[in-house]
Amino acid sequence: MCGIVGIANHPEASNLAYLCLYAQQHRGQESGGIVSSDGTTLYQHRAMGHISDIFTRDVIAKLPGHNAIGHVRYSTSGASTLKNAYPFVVNYSGGWLAVSHNGNLTNYRKLRKELEKEGSIFNASVDSEVVMHLVAKSREGTLEDKLIGALKKIKGSYCFVFISEDKMIAARDPKGIRPLALGELQVNGGGMAHVVVSETCALDLLGAKFIREVEPGEILIFDSCGMRSIKPFEKETKRAQCIFEYIYFARPDSNIFGRDVYTIRTGFGRQLAREHPVEADMVVPVPDSGVPAAIGYSEESGIPFQMALIRNHYVGRTFIEPKKEIRHFGVKVKLNPIRELLKGKRVVCIDDSIVRGTTSLKIVKMLKDAGAKEVHMRISSPPTSWPCFYGIDTPTREELIASSHTIEEIRKYIGADSLGYLSKEALYWFEKVNGNEWFCDACFTGDYPVDVDDAPEIMKLTKK
Amino acid sequence: MCGIVGIANHPEASNLAYLCLYAQQHRGQESGGIVSSDGTTLYQHRAMGHISDIFTRDVIAKLPGHNAIGHVRYSTSGASTLKNAYPFVVNYSGGWLAVSHNGNLTNYRKLRKELEKEGSIFNASVDSEVVMHLVAKSREGTLEDKLIGALKKIKGSYCFVFISEDKMIAARDPKGIRPLALGELQVNGGGMAHVVVSETCALDLLGAKFIREVEPGEILIFDSCGMRSIKPFEKETKRAQCIFEYIYFARPDSNIFGRDVYTIRTGFGRQLAREHPVEADMVVPVPDSGVPAAIGYSEESGIPFQMALIRNHYVGRTFIEPKKEIRHFGVKVKLNPIRELLKGKRVVCIDDSIVRGTTSLKIVKMLKDAGAKEVHMRISSPPTSWPCFYGIDTPTREELIASSHTIEEIRKYIGADSLGYLSKEALYWFEKVNGNEWFCDACFTGDYPVDVDDAPEIMKLTKK
Amino acid sequence: MCGIVGIANHPEASNLAYLCLYAQQHRGQESGGIVSSDGTTLYQHRAMGHISDIFTRDVIAKLPGHNAIGHVRYSTSGASTLKNAYPFVVNYSGGWLAVSHNGNLTNYRKLRKELEKEGSIFNASVDSEVVMHLVAKSREGTLEDKLIGALKKIKGSYCFVFISEDKMIAARDPKGIRPLALGELQVNGGGMAHVVVSETCALDLLGAKFIREVEPGEILIFDSCGMRSIKPFEKETKRAQCIFEYIYFARPDSNIFGRDVYTIRTGFGRQLAREHPVEADMVVPVPDSGVPAAIGYSEESGIPFQMALIRNHYVGRTFIEPKKEIRHFGVKVKLNPIRELLKGKRVVCIDDSIVRGTTSLKIVKMLKDAGAKEVHMRISSPPTSWPCFYGIDTPTREELIASSHTIEEIRKYIGADSLGYLSKEALYWFEKVNGNEWFCDACFTGDYPVDVDDAPEIMKLTKK
Amino acid sequence: MCGIVGIANHPEASNLAYLCLYAQQHRGQESGGIVSSDGTTLYQHRAMGHISDIFTRDVIAKLPGHNAIGHVRYSTSGASTLKNAYPFVVNYSGGWLAVSHNGNLTNYRKLRKELEKEGSIFNASVDSEVVMHLVAKSREGTLEDKLIGALKKIKGSYCFVFISEDKMIAARDPKGIRPLALGELQVNGGGMAHVVVSETCALDLLGAKFIREVEPGEILIFDSCGMRSIKPFEKETKRAQCIFEYIYFARPDSNIFGRDVYTIRTGFGRQLAREHPVEADMVVPVPDSGVPAAIGYSEESGIPFQMALIRNHYVGRTFIEPKKEIRHFGVKVKLNPIRELLKGKRVVCIDDSIVRGTTSLKIVKMLKDAGAKEVHMRISSPPTSWPCFYGIDTPTREELIASSHTIEEIRKYIGADSLGYLSKEALYWFEKVNGNEWFCDACFTGDYPVDVDDAPEIMKLTKK
Repeated sequence: MCGIVGIANHPEASNLAYLCLYAQQHRGQESGGIVSSDGTTLYQHRAMGHISDIFTRDVIAKLPGHNAIGHVRYSTSGASTLKNAYPFVVNYSGGWLAVSHNGNLTNYRKLRKELEKEGSIFNASVDSEVVMHLVAKSREGTLEDKLIGALKKIKGSYCFVFISEDKMIAARDPKGIRPLALGELQVNGGGMAHVVVSETCALDLLGAKFIREVEPGEILIFDSCGMRSIKPFEKETKRAQCIFEYIYFARPDSNIFGRDVYTIRTGFGRQLAREHPVEADMVVPVPDSGVPAAIGYSEESGIPFQMALIRNHYVGRTFIEPKKEIRHFGVKVKLNPIRELLKGKRVVCIDDSIVRGTTSLKIVKMLKDAGAKEVHMRISSPPTSWPCFYGIDTPTREELIASSHTIEEIRKYIGADSLGYLSKEALYWFEKVNGNEWFCDACFTGDYPVDVDDAPEIMKLTKK
Repeated sequence: MCGIVGIANHPEASNLAYLCLYAQQHRGQESGGIVSSDGTTLYQHRAMGHISDIFTRDVIAKLPGHNAIGHVRYSTSGASTLKNAYPFVVNYSGGWLAVSHNGNLTNYRKLRKELEKEGSIFNASVDSEVVMHLVAKSREGTLEDKLIGALKKIKGSYCFVFISEDKMIAARDPKGIRPLALGELQVNGGGMAHVVVSETCALDLLGAKFIREVEPGEILIFDSCGMRSIKPFEKETKRAQCIFEYIYFARPDSNIFGRDVYTIRTGFGRQLAREHPVEADMVVPVPDSGVPAAIGYSEESGIPFQMALIRNHYVGRTFIEPKKEIRHFGVKVKLNPIRELLKGKRVVCIDDSIVRGTTSLKIVKMLKDAGAKEVHMRISSPPTSWPCFYGIDTPTREELIASSHTIEEIRKYIGADSLGYLSKEALYWFEKVNGNEWFCDACFTGDYPVDVDDAPEIMKLTKK
Repeated sequence: MCGIVGIANHPEASNLAYLCLYAQQHRGQESGGIVSSDGTTLYQHRAMGHISDIFTRDVIAKLPGHNAIGHVRYSTSGASTLKNAYPFVVNYSGGWLAVSHNGNLTNYRKLRKELEKEGSIFNASVDSEVVMHLVAKSREGTLEDKLIGALKKIKGSYCFVFISEDKMIAARDPKGIRPLALGELQVNGGGMAHVVVSETCALDLLGAKFIREVEPGEILIFDSCGMRSIKPFEKETKRAQCIFEYIYFARPDSNIFGRDVYTIRTGFGRQLAREHPVEADMVVPVPDSGVPAAIGYSEESGIPFQMALIRNHYVGRTFIEPKKEIRHFGVKVKLNPIRELLKGKRVVCIDDSIVRGTTSLKIVKMLKDAGAKEVHMRISSPPTSWPCFYGIDTPTREELIASSHTIEEIRKYIGADSLGYLSKEALYWFEKVNGNEWFCDACFTGDYPVDVDDAPEIMKLTKK
Repeated sequence: MCGIVGIANHPEASNLAYLCLYAQQHRGQESGGIVSSDGTTLYQHRAMGHISDIFTRDVIAKLPGHNAIGHVRYSTSGASTLKNAYPFVVNYSGGWLAVSHNGNLTNYRKLRKELEKEGSIFNASVDSEVVMHLVAKSREGTLEDKLIGALKKIKGSYCFVFISEDKMIAARDPKGIRPLALGELQVNGGGMAHVVVSETCALDLLGAKFIREVEPGEILIFDSCGMRSIKPFEKETKRAQCIFEYIYFARPDSNIFGRDVYTIRTGFGRQLAREHPVEADMVVPVPDSGVPAAIGYSEESGIPFQMALIRNHYVGRTFIEPKKEIRHFGVKVKLNPIRELLKGKRVVCIDDSIVRGTTSLKIVKMLKDAGAKEVHMRISSPPTSWPCFYGIDTPTREELIASSHTIEEIRKYIGADSLGYLSKEALYWFEKVNGNEWFCDACFTGDYPVDVDDAPEIMKLTKK
């Protein structure tokens, strides 16, 4: 998971890109970077860490120009180095080109092997490096045409923002798996700048107007003439928008895939209350992601909402435990229960999902140790049984507890008095017309909407 | 405001001190430090920044010993340098001595001037430096006796933890203005360690047992013989516990002055709903501090609770605004409203206090810009009209909007449709017997329970 | 100019590589790096700055394995970023490959353009990136064979050390332009390690035995079977060893191209005394590079040697001049004259070369301001009239004062009382048999021994 | 040993102070700092490390004002922390006061104990902290008068530069043990600034004119009226200028105690050649400190001077040796011999002093391993038999090899073929009139010119 941004035709492009990364920091805290262009040259700065530590006034001053792209990265295991930080910059026959990428290419390994066979070398372990190779090898004339050719060869999920000396180009995959929003901002002194971001909360910080989503399969070209849209792909009949953006990833104040995330999440909570009612004294969210669903559950059930688990927001990258400590601190570092409130009470605890089950186990234990008489776990999504190949860092199938355990087995494992998941039907409460036709819910169903060439065996295991 | 910790008789004292600072980071994010003792030598590390950045495994390894004290500091204006970071360490005729301090001495300037007249030099701008001078000048024999003499000369609020080569000493002012809790922790391999912290949430992280508060006027001495308590002051008939710890400062999962903060805050909300009811569609807290009161208001009024203002938890020390931006970003950096939820709605907005009024003004504007039809501001404390001299960094009287404006004037200034403050009576809903006899509420009343020698004119202005 | 190292078959390979970089720091102070291999994986660390700042015990501990290569870099203008730091690492069909490079490819731009036309992308601005592309595109079977193919396509000067998962390979260009020495080191516990370095002073620090030069056109392969030598190029009849290594670049305690640098430099001084004798009171070197030639001049002429210019060895990367200062500090930061010694004296000042003339001008002025009655400049090399394309960072022809001025004009410009350059004949005093047949002295003669495809016009200007 | 600077009445005072520290970096590489004053407030910056790393343009911009003092520190063992970095700043009844100190107080412990008995506290371990206490306790009216009182109580060696809000004051001890020079500099735009430095090489870098030494016992006051001199001490009949400044510490291009260091050092070499002649093939200095004496020895003896030991000038703070290495690298890291030059030769090796003997042992071995047939060690000072209490960091008497061994025993220990020290008489070749009347040579003679209260036993051991 990552957050991206592109700013076109604004005199302070890199400062605006910085603000958009700031607002999207929750999408990746490992590394960040900005590449800007003044029409002639690309300027770049990338570093490990948080946006507020990486960018100073001096650094931004060294990123001049009217176009800029940026990236915040949440790294998957093993590849966490500056070399793999985005934006990724290369030089090729057409000049300089940089890219920010949110998503995951499912034929990356296959394409990389083919490219390596042809003698290509790779400097990083980021999957958009293959896109750069494909662009560079293209015989087409313009950058747009080179890009179209490259995009037709790749599979998977992607939102790209490219920047060259004189253009910025945004592209979203034909199935629309990852979100990408288009905004515009009046420039002081005249003119209109364009802004492309993963989440609309970044537009809010700028004070930019949210125009619309970048459409699935759409390519937007921004240059000195303004913005042009091209749609080089055949019209897809179905979308495959990532349902997990609604469940967990996006900020609740963002509009994603045309809908407000907060409203959808409180709706999950209301549905959950209808499907899995229980007599209890309070509804307690696992903060922060469980809060809206807990509010919905409370509304629907009439059971009072309480913030009985308090989150420490100063949790850093490292945490030093005493050497002789037998039990690991784990979730204790982040959460602390309010004992007086919980003592002798029956608690409905709302979380967004269960992955390995170990966190839920610790939370149930924490609530019970704090005096809760009963803990009823309610999950605002169906059981997560299949890994994601489209950009969310989930573990392998073996590690997903729901892939090999019944709900009753999971309940026993986590020590809850009852356990209820949201049903697949109730998940689409907000989308009565198309239902799951428009969404990717492969993590719950195994129905992968886009081939996963790099892990072909997974396709055989699924229902397809 | 600061957070302090003392660990006595534990083989990993500095690691535990680090954990307690971690849990109390909300009490000060500017600088942090630990001083440990192995019975012979003091070891120290202090730096600017967050605890998770300051302390690495290597740093903690260089702080050996079975006793340790620590500090997180929230600096008041002007004095923000490493030199003023705590713990403050000196050498005197009795050897080494270090101290962590939470509070503010109200005769610091007076004592400092006297000491300077006698030829004392000052290396820092921290008020406990005068205590060190008084201890060093004492003719008494033991460190305890020197300390008692010093404490009898100072006025104001304080919780101290001192560490010498062979002792740790905790002390709380006779009025009990600032909180200080005592816990104990079983040592792996036998024995019992003692822990002294500002807030009990730090005991929870350690898994230490909360025994009791350190009593007002009590001095606790920890050495190889264990713990001793002495009470050298005449018994005070009244306490002066800081009511603002309940309103804003403490973490909701802490037990302060013998009561759970979360429960008290939800009670403030319930009282507020009774005193200032209004017809509305939703109750919206200013996060995070307004959340419990909003939950209480919602419970009592039956108006649904909604998290319609989302907080960005990645806000850093610096924030770089575009140069040509006319309006400053201000509260926008921290908060973003959920438009869809607010559109056309009547909102009760709950905040803990109004200081200058500028933040409330921006929040009301933000809610209205997001579409709210009405905004009813409800404050879970009485009007803040008097500055605090006991450790909370409030502005001067002139800057406190409530010191010179009526509630109606404030309402107009912030642009709210209605404004309601909690009454002084309702503030003590939880303390029917003693009422405000046990608390300092000078910020609301001007009744300063301890003389402020350094600002004598303030005493004349007040009712006393 | 750069310094390189390769260590093969030693259990502490990266620590030894670090020591060799330490000893070769004078060949590049901008950035440094090491890549090691444990037979399976490559480990890397690269950073800007000095070796003693870049490498800590912890960093070296993260570079395990029995093979390692390293690099210190002196960057030419504009390309000074971490991205261009060496060793340069890529992944291709054959696995991982890293390279350190000393030298400059003269058909780099031409090859890069060809590669870009074929669709290759470039991530850095280092010329060995084209070699990596050529290796990756090769259809040959083994890494050695791929490399031979690549080396046959490139022109210019190079000493390479490559490292793959299981091999280390050293290669020197057929003309032997840059130096490369081979050493061996007994491993504690048995076995013999091989060491390849730019200068033998690095072998001295290790206590390694200097075996011989890597021969021009030779490729040395180090793997688990030990060392193999192959010579895939046709035997060159002439070498083109860089004479400037003797004049300026190498450390005086190194053996370069089979001869001790110090001895050659004192010889330059003796020749200079014969060719340009003068009556004077003292011989003063421009430290440190002018010292051996000044000793030689003093010996031959009988004029006393004096260190009348003292060098500040703590000169850092930055130097902050007062804003209102009219004259820039320039050479004053590095050198200070000893007034008492110089007052009223006739001085022979020895420097290794004159490039733009501005430094000589300042030195003559500094000596005269300090009281010298006469300053006779003596240069231990012929006039530098042509730019170097083989790895030394010289300015363009226009900027070289000797390319467009007579010696008398230069003398006037720098303000010396007399000026004498070493003749081209005397330069080869140590090589009576082959004379300049074995050396590249294009910077003096314009006789470029290897085609400069990237600057073809230069070839027309020269005598060839 | 330390280097100090004071700049008075210059609009870029802190930038000039920085330049003077830069030029005096050889006097201390551990920490550095500057305190400036704009007439109202003191501004400070201190950090560990080299001047060129500590001060950036931004840092200097935050040190405004027309007066500034600075310090470079060479720490003695144990006390190497930022807390002990100079300038040392305090606040007292008279306002702010900061000081830079070069020297060592010999009754520091005694005074500190007395002050502690009176109740004073100490924040650092720097001996000028007692001076600050004495100033603060003074009942005198002006800062000058307070200072005179304090200086009359302290013993030992000192050159101080103090800075208050509106004055800068320089003071040198009555015996003149440490050097302090006064210079002046024309201010662009009019006016004359004053500069006080440890060594005149710093004046040279500024382009300031060297006026004279600050006289022993003189106090110079710089304020808005210019400079005033007072001499509050009774005239001392003898000086006690540190002879070791001439032997080793000062830069050869400085004028110290009224004489040029380089000239004195070459004289030491000439005397040494007369006292200890030997048949040999070359004179080789231990660089850099042995160079001038070797030049002198060569001149006098006619034996050729050769730089056969090459120094690595990039030696950093840390050096990481291979784990399994049996012999430690020691002097090898800094020096490398030129084998070809030394092979079969008889070498006169010149060093400035022998302390423990271990370095000389390694150098003799290095020369012999490189092939030298004979090594004749010549030391340009008498045997160092007594520790220094006046500011040079020498080991205890037990560790000084000459305190308990004859010259023949030392020769055997270091493995030299012969060993010759300069005689005490020849040491004063440059001072025929007063001889050693004007110098402190206690390190050779045990005649301590100033009482050492903190180590009284040493006085009994000496001849006095």
